[in-house]
Amino acid sequence: MKQINLDQTPPLTIARALAAEFAKTAVARDQLGGTPKAERDALRASGLLTLIIPKAQGGLGASWSETLAIVRELARVDSSVAHVFAFQHLLLATVQLFGQPEQWQPWFEQTVAKRWFWGNALNPLDPRTLSTAHGHWYEFHGEKSFCSGATDSDMLIASAQSGDKQGLLIAAIPTTRQGIHLRQDWDNMGQRQTDSGSAQFDHVRVEAGEVLLNPGPLSTPRSCLRPLIAQLILTNIYLGIAEGALHEARQYSLEQRRLWPASLATSANKDPFTLLHYGEFFAALEGARLLTDRAGEQLDEAWHKQAQLSESARGQLAVSIAAAKVAASRTGLDLTSRIFDVTGARATTAARRLDRFWRNLRVHSLHDPLDYKLQELGDWALNGQFPTPSFYS
Amino acid sequence: MKQINLDQTPPLTIARALAAEFAKTAVARDQLGGTPKAERDALRASGLLTLIIPKAQGGLGASWSETLAIVRELARVDSSVAHVFAFQHLLLATVQLFGQPEQWQPWFEQTVAKRWFWGNALNPLDPRTLSTAHGHWYEFHGEKSFCSGATDSDMLIASAQSGDKQGLLIAAIPTTRQGIHLRQDWDNMGQRQTDSGSAQFDHVRVEAGEVLLNPGPLSTPRSCLRPLIAQLILTNIYLGIAEGALHEARQYSLEQRRLWPASLATSANKDPFTLLHYGEFFAALEGARLLTDRAGEQLDEAWHKQAQLSESARGQLAVSIAAAKVAASRTGLDLTSRIFDVTGARATTAARRLDRFWRNLRVHSLHDPLDYKLQELGDWALNGQFPTPSFYS
Amino acid sequence: MKQINLDQTPPLTIARALAAEFAKTAVARDQLGGTPKAERDALRASGLLTLIIPKAQGGLGASWSETLAIVRELARVDSSVAHVFAFQHLLLATVQLFGQPEQWQPWFEQTVAKRWFWGNALNPLDPRTLSTAHGHWYEFHGEKSFCSGATDSDMLIASAQSGDKQGLLIAAIPTTRQGIHLRQDWDNMGQRQTDSGSAQFDHVRVEAGEVLLNPGPLSTPRSCLRPLIAQLILTNIYLGIAEGALHEARQYSLEQRRLWPASLATSANKDPFTLLHYGEFFAALEGARLLTDRAGEQLDEAWHKQAQLSESARGQLAVSIAAAKVAASRTGLDLTSRIFDVTGARATTAARRLDRFWRNLRVHSLHDPLDYKLQELGDWALNGQFPTPSFYS
Amino acid sequence: MKQINLDQTPPLTIARALAAEFAKTAVARDQLGGTPKAERDALRASGLLTLIIPKAQGGLGASWSETLAIVRELARVDSSVAHVFAFQHLLLATVQLFGQPEQWQPWFEQTVAKRWFWGNALNPLDPRTLSTAHGHWYEFHGEKSFCSGATDSDMLIASAQSGDKQGLLIAAIPTTRQGIHLRQDWDNMGQRQTDSGSAQFDHVRVEAGEVLLNPGPLSTPRSCLRPLIAQLILTNIYLGIAEGALHEARQYSLEQRRLWPASLATSANKDPFTLLHYGEFFAALEGARLLTDRAGEQLDEAWHKQAQLSESARGQLAVSIAAAKVAASRTGLDLTSRIFDVTGARATTAARRLDRFWRNLRVHSLHDPLDYKLQELGDWALNGQFPTPSFYS
Repeated sequence: MKQINLDQTPPLTIARALAAEFAKTAVARDQLGGTPKAERDALRASGLLTLIIPKAQGGLGASWSETLAIVRELARVDSSVAHVFAFQHLLLATVQLFGQPEQWQPWFEQTVAKRWFWGNALNPLDPRTLSTAHGHWYEFHGEKSFCSGATDSDMLIASAQSGDKQGLLIAAIPTTRQGIHLRQDWDNMGQRQTDSGSAQFDHVRVEAGEVLLNPGPLSTPRSCLRPLIAQLILTNIYLGIAEGALHEARQYSLEQRRLWPASLATSANKDPFTLLHYGEFFAALEGARLLTDRAGEQLDEAWHKQAQLSESARGQLAVSIAAAKVAASRTGLDLTSRIFDVTGARATTAARRLDRFWRNLRVHSLHDPLDYKLQELGDWALNGQFPTPSFYS
Repeated sequence: MKQINLDQTPPLTIARALAAEFAKTAVARDQLGGTPKAERDALRASGLLTLIIPKAQGGLGASWSETLAIVRELARVDSSVAHVFAFQHLLLATVQLFGQPEQWQPWFEQTVAKRWFWGNALNPLDPRTLSTAHGHWYEFHGEKSFCSGATDSDMLIASAQSGDKQGLLIAAIPTTRQGIHLRQDWDNMGQRQTDSGSAQFDHVRVEAGEVLLNPGPLSTPRSCLRPLIAQLILTNIYLGIAEGALHEARQYSLEQRRLWPASLATSANKDPFTLLHYGEFFAALEGARLLTDRAGEQLDEAWHKQAQLSESARGQLAVSIAAAKVAASRTGLDLTSRIFDVTGARATTAARRLDRFWRNLRVHSLHDPLDYKLQELGDWALNGQFPTPSFYS
Repeated sequence: MKQINLDQTPPLTIARALAAEFAKTAVARDQLGGTPKAERDALRASGLLTLIIPKAQGGLGASWSETLAIVRELARVDSSVAHVFAFQHLLLATVQLFGQPEQWQPWFEQTVAKRWFWGNALNPLDPRTLSTAHGHWYEFHGEKSFCSGATDSDMLIASAQSGDKQGLLIAAIPTTRQGIHLRQDWDNMGQRQTDSGSAQFDHVRVEAGEVLLNPGPLSTPRSCLRPLIAQLILTNIYLGIAEGALHEARQYSLEQRRLWPASLATSANKDPFTLLHYGEFFAALEGARLLTDRAGEQLDEAWHKQAQLSESARGQLAVSIAAAKVAASRTGLDLTSRIFDVTGARATTAARRLDRFWRNLRVHSLHDPLDYKLQELGDWALNGQFPTPSFYS
Repeated sequence: MKQINLDQTPPLTIARALAAEFAKTAVARDQLGGTPKAERDALRASGLLTLIIPKAQGGLGASWSETLAIVRELARVDSSVAHVFAFQHLLLATVQLFGQPEQWQPWFEQTVAKRWFWGNALNPLDPRTLSTAHGHWYEFHGEKSFCSGATDSDMLIASAQSGDKQGLLIAAIPTTRQGIHLRQDWDNMGQRQTDSGSAQFDHVRVEAGEVLLNPGPLSTPRSCLRPLIAQLILTNIYLGIAEGALHEARQYSLEQRRLWPASLATSANKDPFTLLHYGEFFAALEGARLLTDRAGEQLDEAWHKQAQLSESARGQLAVSIAAAKVAASRTGLDLTSRIFDVTGARATTAARRLDRFWRNLRVHSLHDPLDYKLQELGDWALNGQFPTPSFYS
């Protein structure tokens, strides 16, 4: 890939250049699966992995809105790379929100200096990894599924169940720590280059200073921002996938679509039913875009309030993000399936893999059930009840 | 109705007070139909009929965003009154956009001084009223349908077909002008107090200075704002209707809804399916709200550009408004029908007339076909083609 | 109304003649509400009130399929009259299914001889009417809501809660029995001539022989047919309403619809979007029709099995009816709202009251929640579990 | 594969045994693509390739209903094999409908004797193959796309454009005929083992007796049955795919689905939202099944009418098939995407390839645009106009 001068280039410009590169191989890599090593290294080289790191620690000091815009930009062409890129920032947020500055500041500085890529081993719904306390250290032992971006990472955010009142322990540890085994067992129908496979923790030693206990997970309104950031990342990825699908469909419709004999139009791009579909795509996408962007701005505000963030401000943000997520999921699933109605049968060639948009979104939109997101929104709309904070709300 | 001091009160506060009054009789008036004379006079007395009139002419000098927010506020409780109130401002915009300051400034001043209510007799799809030129005056003669708010108005915007290249002539004339007969023949299933009946022009003399010829209808990008204002007014009314319906449904659900025996919940307001419906209502409404508000802000910008408004800026606004209208129509039609699924059978009592939301929206959403609005959006999304300006685009 | 010779005329022919008469006044009567006395008397005179009564008791001995076809025929033009007509047969089934031949045979014979119309006062969800046992008679005392067709009826099926293990008592009593007060308080947004108001039982004496204790309600698979008949009646009425709406929409589209200027078609009846809507209406209706007709045939089979009806045969029938009801409700609600998209704004005139189809269906479809009907179908589809018999399943 | 005794076994039983075998490798073969040679040979060996061949010519003499039931049975587990199997019968119908008994009887006898598999090279929308007349023979020359089942076939139905009034020539020729080159270039996102790639005709000699000129394509109501058979085959395949998807989803839900923490249910298979989805799947499928089966029965009737088939009977059948196709397409696309909402994220593993149902249906449902099928139904519903016969109607 060509070199990009990071010094004066705005991050979004860098991201667009990277996206243009990633687009060239996205179809081939969707077929291959596995680790997008070259793309991960390009992200490392781009400096964009430090987007959300404050300038005080040497990062780019971007806002969440800016960061999410870049996530969406990448998702338009490659939602797997967008996913692991976004989780980099979610994990950096995790250590900030759950831990103390003495913990995360050095990690941030090293992330900048050593271009660390962070990976995920946190899945709170998988209780198989257990933690045992040993004075100044803990032992993590057991299995963990859905460890997106753990392969080829430098640092891991891992979780384990303690048997006592501490509940879920979350720690930041080097991926090379002895006893960590990452299995290359992710082979799913979509998001194929996210390495969301399983990990094994074989009597892994975790130092006390690596555990995020103060304030710890979901302990304060601010620490409860973490799941909201995760949900808004998902939303931006869904939206990016839909936008990418529409972009490719449009190219195909304009270049290749043939006029159906029974059409009253004189060219395929003026066929009434084709225009009806595109009109519906556009109107739905616009709504999802506005909801998603508004939620991003509200996240920026909530983030800046630091410890002053109130429960109700956090609740309002949760509602905005949930509404955006519902819109992006539904619009995206509908659009990525219906694009074929405006391209026709020949667009199903494996050479284009236009189905990857639906496959990627279908997989990613199962992160947590949309029905329960709607139930939360309903509880707000009917009962004025904010979503109860959890790792999914 | 109680007196409101107009001097220091923000217009939205005045509107809310009026809305609270109108709400008390909305159910009864929906049944009655006819002219909401008391409410029209309350609007006259409130000063809100001068909202969009610049301060230079003695008006309140509100922006379109502010004006539309008030339209929506009224529409939540009474979409008939909201309609004629909104058309007041549309018609004031019409004389500004199609005519010259020498024409509209005196009319504006008199509107302020005499609390004029403007009515509509413009329907461009009804070609039955013809115009004949007679030197310094014109004769309008023939029928005109869908003359919303003409009854009890002080001024009318009327249109007639000239046989020559001038095409559609649009004039502002006093409602009392000799030969104008307004028929009290509006009796429709919704928007029952809009007086959208027919008018007869019986050899009506229209002075040359009353005709809006320079720049005339749809002649410049700026004059082409007129249909966009109309469309965005409709959109805000649809949205207000949906919001009003949700508000009443929520009250009913909370106060009266009984738990269905097979429900797993312990109270009706926690029933999973009920929450699912409310979640869907809320998410859809939020999207429509953001689209509608954005379009309002864009209209403010376009309005301020005056004669500098470009075709493409006008086109972008048209697209934003179309997307908002699609969302508000569809969301509203769905919601006003489905609210009964969250209230149950007893909520169908005529005492509440909860069906009026669907009836009002169903009638009003037929102003022009949604299918063709979607076709326009599709032409934009696929072909990058802005909607061709017309009285409906 | 003109005289019809009942002797050789097939019931469906009679029903069509009646429907043609009812159609002439349906719009006016929808506005009036109240009791359709002339239509009820025409039904009495027609002999159709004995449709489901076996020939042995002097009835027409029709099958349920035939009876339901006639219900649907009437519902196309007047779903209020269809409702009370259908409930006549539901109530006749009730006494057969819950009582003994010694009870229902004389009632049937009198129904034939005296042209009795039966009315409903059974609402099992309203627990306010209580029963007290007094040796050979019971006292019913209290209120009852949703007593469709009770006004102008000759016999009533009434229910009351006993305090003991007998639970719900159901009795057949003359409407003129002392202490029964029928309130003329039904004024709802749809089904306006069903008289579904409230009744007051003021220390009403009910003889032991009038109570349906053997086998009693919902006691055997056969007695559990009663709610299924009710559900299939509702389904046929929903379908009839939708068919009636489509019929009137079609007439309007063909006669009055104008071509939208932007259409590529040369006449309104060939507009692509209009045809798309009609295509969707038709396809959905066809599916609902086949589901409904199949369920009717299965009901005929189940009915003929008499006491041999097994739980699983009853369960299969319940599933078929539920599927038909879901299809008819959803198709109908969608169609009765969307017909206006194919007729346009002028079709909203109160002179046609085309909204009555939506209003009637909206009210009637709230009899019991569709969400729970879907839940039952889901339990069948996923878990192979038949619906648990109740008054709604 | 195990041997099946064909002599006394009903065809559907044979088909089920084959389906059970095909199911074992369907996931692996979906990944591989290419020609399902073993499965094709198993079909040859099974005798089922002669289903629709009359007993007079040694075939099984099955009706279309029986044949389509078997197509659907196969499609539940392998819609690629179902496709080529179904097209065998479509092509056998083609020679019967477009040709003379002197032509098709010998071909039928040889099909029985030599277990011929027929392949398709008929795509009427691809005009690149041209025909030149040379006295008693024709030369076919050019390209042809979408030649499903041509590879590994014994006979081909091929079409070519003549320059004159004969228009489209259709011929039955041995696949081994000199000059026919079948390219192994089918690599699409679904229906991956249908070999629907392209063919090249390199100056291929076609004898006059091989050309189907009397009555020729789409010449009589009866010959116009051909496209209807094609459409009903597609419909049955769509329905089979949907049924197969539901079957696998159900297995997964019952065995692997975990209860979401926020659910009010005590087990995943009783979760209200999960049941709601299943209820909607079931109700929609039931409607599509009844429409499809009814169309099959009507096809049997139309087929038996032979040359007496009237235009209106053909038209009615076309309408029934179109309604079934709309229902099966829409239900299937919705269901194959939504099954993941009832299985959850882990069901996206490539080991199960549950996405193949959506991919197969998405590809196959693009055969001709659903929008235009709906337009045809609308023309029937509104204007009473039967679909104009064509290769797609």
